[in-house]
Amino acid sequence: MSSSLYTGGQALFICLAFIGLDLLVNVFGLAWNGKYFTFDNIAHWFDLANYSFLKNPVDFLAVALIRDSILLGGAVSAWASPSGFSQVAENVKNVVFAMMLLIVAFAPSKLLAFYEDDNIRLAVGDWILMIWCIFASLLLQGIWTSVLAHVTEVAAGTGDSLLFGDAEHEERLRQEEAEKAAEQRETFQLLFRLLGYMGRQWKYYGMAFFFLFCYSLSRVFIPYYTGEVVTAVFGDKASYEKLHKTVFIMGMLSLASTVFGGLRGGSFTYAHATIDRQIRNDLFRSVVKQEIGFFDMNKTGEICSRLSADCQTMSNTLSLYMNVLTRNLTMLFGSLIFMFTLSWKLSMITLINIPIIFLVNKIFGVWYDMLSEETQNSVAKANDVAEEVLSSIRTVKSFACENYESSRFMTFLNVTLKIATRKVFVVIGLIWSNELLQMGILTIVLWYGGHLVIENKVESGLLVSFLLYQFQLGENLRELGEVWNGLMQAVGASRKVFEFIDRPPRVENTGTYAPDGMTGKIEFRHVAFSYPIRPDLPIMEDLTFTVEPGEVVALVGPSGGGKSSCIAMLEHFYEPTSGEVLIDGVPVREYDHKFLHTKVALVGQEPVLYARSVTENIGYGLDKYDDDMVQNSAKLANAHTFIMNDTTDGYNTNVGEKGSQMSGVYSNSLKFKL
Amino acid sequence: MSSSLYTGGQALFICLAFIGLDLLVNVFGLAWNGKYFTFDNIAHWFDLANYSFLKNPVDFLAVALIRDSILLGGAVSAWASPSGFSQVAENVKNVVFAMMLLIVAFAPSKLLAFYEDDNIRLAVGDWILMIWCIFASLLLQGIWTSVLAHVTEVAAGTGDSLLFGDAEHEERLRQEEAEKAAEQRETFQLLFRLLGYMGRQWKYYGMAFFFLFCYSLSRVFIPYYTGEVVTAVFGDKASYEKLHKTVFIMGMLSLASTVFGGLRGGSFTYAHATIDRQIRNDLFRSVVKQEIGFFDMNKTGEICSRLSADCQTMSNTLSLYMNVLTRNLTMLFGSLIFMFTLSWKLSMITLINIPIIFLVNKIFGVWYDMLSEETQNSVAKANDVAEEVLSSIRTVKSFACENYESSRFMTFLNVTLKIATRKVFVVIGLIWSNELLQMGILTIVLWYGGHLVIENKVESGLLVSFLLYQFQLGENLRELGEVWNGLMQAVGASRKVFEFIDRPPRVENTGTYAPDGMTGKIEFRHVAFSYPIRPDLPIMEDLTFTVEPGEVVALVGPSGGGKSSCIAMLEHFYEPTSGEVLIDGVPVREYDHKFLHTKVALVGQEPVLYARSVTENIGYGLDKYDDDMVQNSAKLANAHTFIMNDTTDGYNTNVGEKGSQMSGVYSNSLKFKL
Repeated sequence: MSSSLYTGGQALFICLAFIGLDLLVNVFGLAWNGKYFTFDNIAHWFDLANYSFLKNPVDFLAVALIRDSILLGGAVSAWASPSGFSQVAENVKNVVFAMMLLIVAFAPSKLLAFYEDDNIRLAVGDWILMIWCIFASLLLQGIWTSVLAHVTEVAAGTGDSLLFGDAEHEERLRQEEAEKAAEQRETFQLLFRLLGYMGRQWKYYGMAFFFLFCYSLSRVFIPYYTGEVVTAVFGDKASYEKLHKTVFIMGMLSLASTVFGGLRGGSFTYAHATIDRQIRNDLFRSVVKQEIGFFDMNKTGEICSRLSADCQTMSNTLSLYMNVLTRNLTMLFGSLIFMFTLSWKLSMITLINIPIIFLVNKIFGVWYDMLSEETQNSVAKANDVAEEVLSSIRTVKSFACENYESSRFMTFLNVTLKIATRKVFVVIGLIWSNELLQMGILTIVLWYGGHLVIENKVESGLLVSFLLYQFQLGENLRELGEVWNGLMQAVGASRKVFEFIDRPPRVENTGTYAPDGMTGKIEFRHVAFSYPIRPDLPIMEDLTFTVEPGEVVALVGPSGGGKSSCIAMLEHFYEPTSGEVLIDGVPVREYDHKFLHTKVALVGQEPVLYARSVTENIGYGLDKYDDDMVQNSAKLANAHTFIMNDTTDGYNTNVGEKGSQMSGVYSNSLKFKL
Repeated sequence: MSSSLYTGGQALFICLAFIGLDLLVNVFGLAWNGKYFTFDNIAHWFDLANYSFLKNPVDFLAVALIRDSILLGGAVSAWASPSGFSQVAENVKNVVFAMMLLIVAFAPSKLLAFYEDDNIRLAVGDWILMIWCIFASLLLQGIWTSVLAHVTEVAAGTGDSLLFGDAEHEERLRQEEAEKAAEQRETFQLLFRLLGYMGRQWKYYGMAFFFLFCYSLSRVFIPYYTGEVVTAVFGDKASYEKLHKTVFIMGMLSLASTVFGGLRGGSFTYAHATIDRQIRNDLFRSVVKQEIGFFDMNKTGEICSRLSADCQTMSNTLSLYMNVLTRNLTMLFGSLIFMFTLSWKLSMITLINIPIIFLVNKIFGVWYDMLSEETQNSVAKANDVAEEVLSSIRTVKSFACENYESSRFMTFLNVTLKIATRKVFVVIGLIWSNELLQMGILTIVLWYGGHLVIENKVESGLLVSFLLYQFQLGENLRELGEVWNGLMQAVGASRKVFEFIDRPPRVENTGTYAPDGMTGKIEFRHVAFSYPIRPDLPIMEDLTFTVEPGEVVALVGPSGGGKSSCIAMLEHFYEPTSGEVLIDGVPVREYDHKFLHTKVALVGQEPVLYARSVTENIGYGLDKYDDDMVQNSAKLANAHTFIMNDTTDGYNTNVGEKGSQMSGVYSNSLKFKL
């Protein structure tokens, strides 16, 4: 639906159809508004001289007319000048939404008004009018965003020849929407994948969520019993018996919430740790399997930062916000149920306000975000200027322009400050409307609650419980508002991590050929090669040579000539771009990875030593080895005496990071194979 | 006091003195515990068969005995084996503190007990006992941390010869403390300096804090009137008149808090923006004044990140947390005043619990921090392993050890998971104790409040107000707990920023010599030079030469030979290590900075163009210039035709970042001087 485009005429037709339906349903509702369905009722409601807000439903029609005028205005404009209208419709979308939400809020207000008089029984028509009022307002908003904001001069697929500008515009619209949709899809895919990780630790998370549920449940009861305690001591019926009973229940609830709360925290801590281990392990396993070209392209530091920072962000935020989400959702629904049970009328007052608060935040929020972006852009511009100046500081100094540049930087800072001046008003507006609504609800609930208590429609003690639930509801809504951003952090970090986990190595070590013996004949057949990181820079083209078994060959040439590239291909670090590298007539890629590397080895100028014991360094790469084997090969390499005499702990000496505990010469002599 | 050291004997003496005093004051308090001061009273209180918690103050003596035994135990151990005892004392410090806080909490409990019977008038002795109980417990904690944790085998300054180990230990202790103190001092200095920045914007911050104060004040009244509204509709005395009156006040308070809240938000937004501008401007001004050597040492990227990220953190967190701090402090004190006014007895119940909550959090917090550090270390170790493997991936692959390294990494991850297993229990303990205390207080306040209402000691409606204040108090304390960490973030960022702001340039351009004409004789006299970034690598030693006016000189030599260093010294970018660089017989440092650079200029191979108009690029460095001057010099440099014909907008063309909108040749030809 959202990717369709409409002509102005089509849009007008859809809107007129909606308006007709809207008026029809309203008249219908008014007609059914006695005990029977009769059109006499309508005339009866139009007796405006005796209009009473508490009884007459005719105002639903008035509200519908307001709603329809708005839509009609939009539709006629779209029809009259379709070109560019979609942008206008997009821009005023939020304002329309604001008005629709106000109209939505009208329905429950009217419901409360009807229920003021206990003797009135609501007719079928009243319900029709109220429900339709909500439904029609939301539908109108839908029509606005999906039809009026997608009006184009000529509809696609009508067979008429499209003007170039329009086709381009249409194409752009479609593309933008497709991109947005793809991004959303990707976000949700990542989110589900993250949840999948939680699923793999279902034992711990199951436990955690179970305890969380019990905890939230016991917490939900607490405001209710707080109110009960207050009731127990109020007025003439106060008694120690009632006090002790209610306080005892409070104590039990507290105990339960404490016990479950602790268990919840504990299980989340452990589940979080297991997921952390899982993600890191998956990432590391995938990364070490990548071909050498991957490491040419990604710096070690960058990979390590994914392994540490990004993994941590993923597991931390995921656990934290799933916890927050579940707790607040449970408590939110619990509180709502309690509130409606305590008094559906008071709850309605709160509910009427939620769309209005949502709306005000939306309008000011858009404005605030716009200014924030403007601020960010202006700060970024100032930073660009600073960077330009600092990176060419010699030029600045050689023209003695330090002060000039400082003043220039200041003008950019002043721009930011000017934006802040406008931001001040948005902040004031945002806070005013928000606080006014929140404090307004509290005041209204107090007044209406008091009114209901005095009228004996609500038991007095329940007002206290209700107030406490209302505070809790606000708290829950606030915390839920933070969940999405939190989860998006996890998704953001996971995007990078999954990218590496999912990457298939470009050079796969899937060969299985492992002969009993090798003669060692090396052949390069018409080999062409360039490094994957610089595919446009050929290192060798059509290189062919053969090294016979036992032959000692020296490759000589300038740096960058491809000497080490030959060795790297022989080790199957890279695949040649074309041609073949063969050992004993078999391409290296067909050899078993492990087998190949027991036969082909490179002794570099600066051998790598690991921060492990001498024994482990010598035995590196072997599945099994014992001290005798290690010592024998050390003796063969003339390293035994040195190891025994010149190290602190013989074969158990830890050689330190990058062999830093060993002097260069010695560390060289340590590098030989068993 | 904290840097003194004590022998075991001295410590024992101090402790015994305290114990004596403690017992004396307690006996004295018991003696004064009738209408008159008489020792008969004491015997009276020891009639334990008729002991009543509500009347008998003898348990203060019992509590004192517990307290003194703990101290005596410590003191005797210190005396018996002073060596190493200070460490033990340091370790159990928190446990001792825990016990002391429990004893502190005993005093107000006793006070409430005494007040149960309205007929009892508290004697002077009761007050002495209660106040001393609190004071003595805190004093004991002080003695433990500053005396027992500083016991050494032989005291310093006694003239006895110190054992080497002891002197060393003592020295280490002193040093550690000095370092800690210096760090604290620095933190507070930075904090004050940050506040100083706020002081410079006092107009806006003054306004902001004023509105904040008004806002908090109106908020403080709201729980009280919420309670009043509830009272207005409870029971038989309910009336619409009372309801409307209290709801009206609520409405006014809500309105006031809304108005002030918005103004507060607005002024903070603006004040924050001004401070942000101030800090950035100060930093930029200081940085561009630095000598070239500074830019050799600090990469542009690093300086820019201070200019953007650190400055932002500073101004953001400072404004935010000063706002949070002031709001919560105002509301905390307001709530406390209200609570005590409503019922000092109920408030006392809350107050008793605060030290206990503090204590439990302290004990579990230390444990939790320890495990967190352990986790961090273990994660860091795993990351080190990963880095070692990834940075030597060729070696790993050439030994076909990918799977081996993956398994090895997993063992390190398992260590982290094992630590998490222990963490689970700490988390459970932390949550259990915290929740139990919080929910416990609520339950106790409800019970005791109900009890007071039933006994007619508290007006019924106030219980609701009190409960609301208690919720608010908890909220305020929680938010205040976050302030310190927030401010420390600002301090952390400011440390780096101030370091640059405070740095005096090593090469100062303070010269004032600006003759009317120059002949242009250049002299190097016995110049030695090395770059400040590598002071041990001399570039030139004892270089002497003279360039006569009008002479064209070519400096020839290998790269790193000092050719450009000569020019840099001539431009006064660096000072020679020794010797003098002179123009017309005057050292370059004595020339006016601006004047010098209108006379000495370097035309490099790759000239720098700024992302400004052609005119601005040509006129760069001149205070005043007009279009004619710019065009004339462009003509002289044969660039006029090119500028007019081959650019998009003639002299107004923006040349783009680093001259990217111009081809290399053209951008070269653009670089000449007016």
